[in-house]
Amino acid sequence: MKILPTIYITLLSTTAAFAPPPSSRTFNTLHSTTEAAIASTANDEVNPGDRDILVRCASGKQVERTPVWLMRQAGRYMAAFRQYSDKYPFRERSETPSMAIELSLQCHRAYGMDGIIMFSDILTPLPTLGIDFDVVKGIGPVITTEVRNVEDVKKLKDAESVNFDETLPFIREILTSLAKEAEDANTSLIGFVGAPFTLAAYTIEGKSSKHCLRTKEMMMADENGSSKAMSLFLDKLAAMIGNYGCHQIECGAQVIQVFESWAHQLSPRQFEEFAKPASQKAIRIMKEKYPDVPVIYFANGGSSYLELQRDMGADMIAVDWSVDMAQARKILGPDIPISGNIDPTILFGTKEQIEQAVRDCIDKAGGPGKHLLNLGHGVMQGTPEEAVGWLVDECKRYRGKEA
Amino acid sequence: MKILPTIYITLLSTTAAFAPPPSSRTFNTLHSTTEAAIASTANDEVNPGDRDILVRCASGKQVERTPVWLMRQAGRYMAAFRQYSDKYPFRERSETPSMAIELSLQCHRAYGMDGIIMFSDILTPLPTLGIDFDVVKGIGPVITTEVRNVEDVKKLKDAESVNFDETLPFIREILTSLAKEAEDANTSLIGFVGAPFTLAAYTIEGKSSKHCLRTKEMMMADENGSSKAMSLFLDKLAAMIGNYGCHQIECGAQVIQVFESWAHQLSPRQFEEFAKPASQKAIRIMKEKYPDVPVIYFANGGSSYLELQRDMGADMIAVDWSVDMAQARKILGPDIPISGNIDPTILFGTKEQIEQAVRDCIDKAGGPGKHLLNLGHGVMQGTPEEAVGWLVDECKRYRGKEA
Repeated sequence: MKILPTIYITLLSTTAAFAPPPSSRTFNTLHSTTEAAIASTANDEVNPGDRDILVRCASGKQVERTPVWLMRQAGRYMAAFRQYSDKYPFRERSETPSMAIELSLQCHRAYGMDGIIMFSDILTPLPTLGIDFDVVKGIGPVITTEVRNVEDVKKLKDAESVNFDETLPFIREILTSLAKEAEDANTSLIGFVGAPFTLAAYTIEGKSSKHCLRTKEMMMADENGSSKAMSLFLDKLAAMIGNYGCHQIECGAQVIQVFESWAHQLSPRQFEEFAKPASQKAIRIMKEKYPDVPVIYFANGGSSYLELQRDMGADMIAVDWSVDMAQARKILGPDIPISGNIDPTILFGTKEQIEQAVRDCIDKAGGPGKHLLNLGHGVMQGTPEEAVGWLVDECKRYRGKEA
Repeated sequence: MKILPTIYITLLSTTAAFAPPPSSRTFNTLHSTTEAAIASTANDEVNPGDRDILVRCASGKQVERTPVWLMRQAGRYMAAFRQYSDKYPFRERSETPSMAIELSLQCHRAYGMDGIIMFSDILTPLPTLGIDFDVVKGIGPVITTEVRNVEDVKKLKDAESVNFDETLPFIREILTSLAKEAEDANTSLIGFVGAPFTLAAYTIEGKSSKHCLRTKEMMMADENGSSKAMSLFLDKLAAMIGNYGCHQIECGAQVIQVFESWAHQLSPRQFEEFAKPASQKAIRIMKEKYPDVPVIYFANGGSSYLELQRDMGADMIAVDWSVDMAQARKILGPDIPISGNIDPTILFGTKEQIEQAVRDCIDKAGGPGKHLLNLGHGVMQGTPEEAVGWLVDECKRYRGKEA
């Protein structure tokens, strides 16, 4: 396989704005460029198993090595990505197919992760229920539709009659193109959704919130029987999200990750009473319709109540970096496939430290099989680009302590 | 016992600025004022066991009921407290004995927790090493002394030769008065210190930080052998903090809580390699000199690696609200006394919900004995004052499922 120097790739990506995605031939030549990749024989030719190694792993099937992708692998740490993010607001980037496709592919071209993930946001489907949002630079998401009581929930659109091709037409266009790109690049296509509680809390608070006090007051009102607004809202969101996951699968996604991004806001009891059953419902909708498509559940900040996540109905549990992988394995049990969980700040370390972290994580998860390597949170802004390559390459190279 | 209406207590507190603390006679009449307290026979007369029930519990001794205090029990949720916090900057309030004493006592007068905690901050002793800080309204603590490398650490003052009576003369004055007040009020006096990693990270970052990237880069430099700045800094801080804890004990504190407030910034590996040995050293210094004074260790945001906290050298482990108390008990084992861990947002619920949360927490911890009730984080601003009373009263009333 021909290896191009990083500088050439960056130039290509930079000039590719709004251009159709590169042809499959070009695409396939733009694989990992780091020293380790050049040295590694495993990466020097296309391995037919790479196409679905991530999907098989998430399904709990035997795999020949630990697959890898990174949350926020398409992100601001890449100069090529910033060419877009500095220029176009988030919704334009994520809802304009040519841009969303390009932004999804950049990192895979550069580092060859085992999956391409659609560039999008967990809030993207909210407008299907009549909830308006924007992502404001320096503030983050801002939601202008008020949902505080039963009447507000009833005013929202019916989750069952959402037509995603009508309300979010760009999703089919993006995923259909990416599915073709993934096939040509011999890799998998990952879709994702936000979990109902997180979307509810975002909506109720209107923006990022330190304590989610309004949301908690609504949960407490539900618990003491003075309102059913929270349960009704979560139920509606769960139905929409389940259907949205199915839609992504129908458009080409081969695996769906469910992001409970605000799990750190929940006490274990609140997780059990509100967030968990709502996520279970969304997952159940996907699994009943598409039993062979694996679902990964990730509760960010929920590592202190992993014991409650054994029965989410998902095929794989993703864990954040605040728990030791060996302890996560112990609490979740030997059978559940686990995704995670390297501390993203490790990517600011040396090549040796990054490679050691990869090996430690794989070994603690029990070696290849039942483990999909990822960070325990998204790639941080400012992460050196080459560090991402070192991580991906070491994961593809390492075969565990026994090898 | 005579019960005064809340309004009268508030007036008294409000007019007490800079006045000497109320005499013990006045003090004793200003006890819990809530309905539950009035109804409870247990609170109607002074129980001699109340004087040291918190200390005995933290030491792992048998207690007749679950004792209770609340992190940030002296805080902005109280109108009487805001009379000071709206007017005087933090350092003035915490370093002027008459104010610090008054602010420590207000909550105990109103709600009768099982301990009075000195109104102070974990950063208070930093100037003893030559590290300057201020607490800026709306920003929080700001530290102006740069510590980034070995030279910076070496420029700091020697931890072993700190004379706390010279550098922080107000501490002896505050604690000596509070010790007398606690004795008169038939309750315990709690001292506290920040853990070395948290103080190091605060200093290195200069202020509150989302990712503590500088601190993590310093830890990684230590790990790859390119610098010893972090180890040296932690070691110096551990010595100072250990000695500072001893000083508080010598001034009258009967129990010391160690706050690792930024444990959420640490991966389990970083906790094990940096934060844990430094905290162990600080705790060891206190326990070697004062083996009978219990030490409580609290890693805020560290509930996902409780398995690493069994051997801190502390008498009791405090847990935050992100872990289920039954799971914390399971991971820590049956013998370790545990403090915690009610979700502070529960205090925005109804009286019934608050009382239920108290009973659930006590039952999950295994009933009275080996459990000191607390929140899993500080009392939040905006918390209704009466809610704190409901929590304290229910804890004092409840004797566990078997009773």
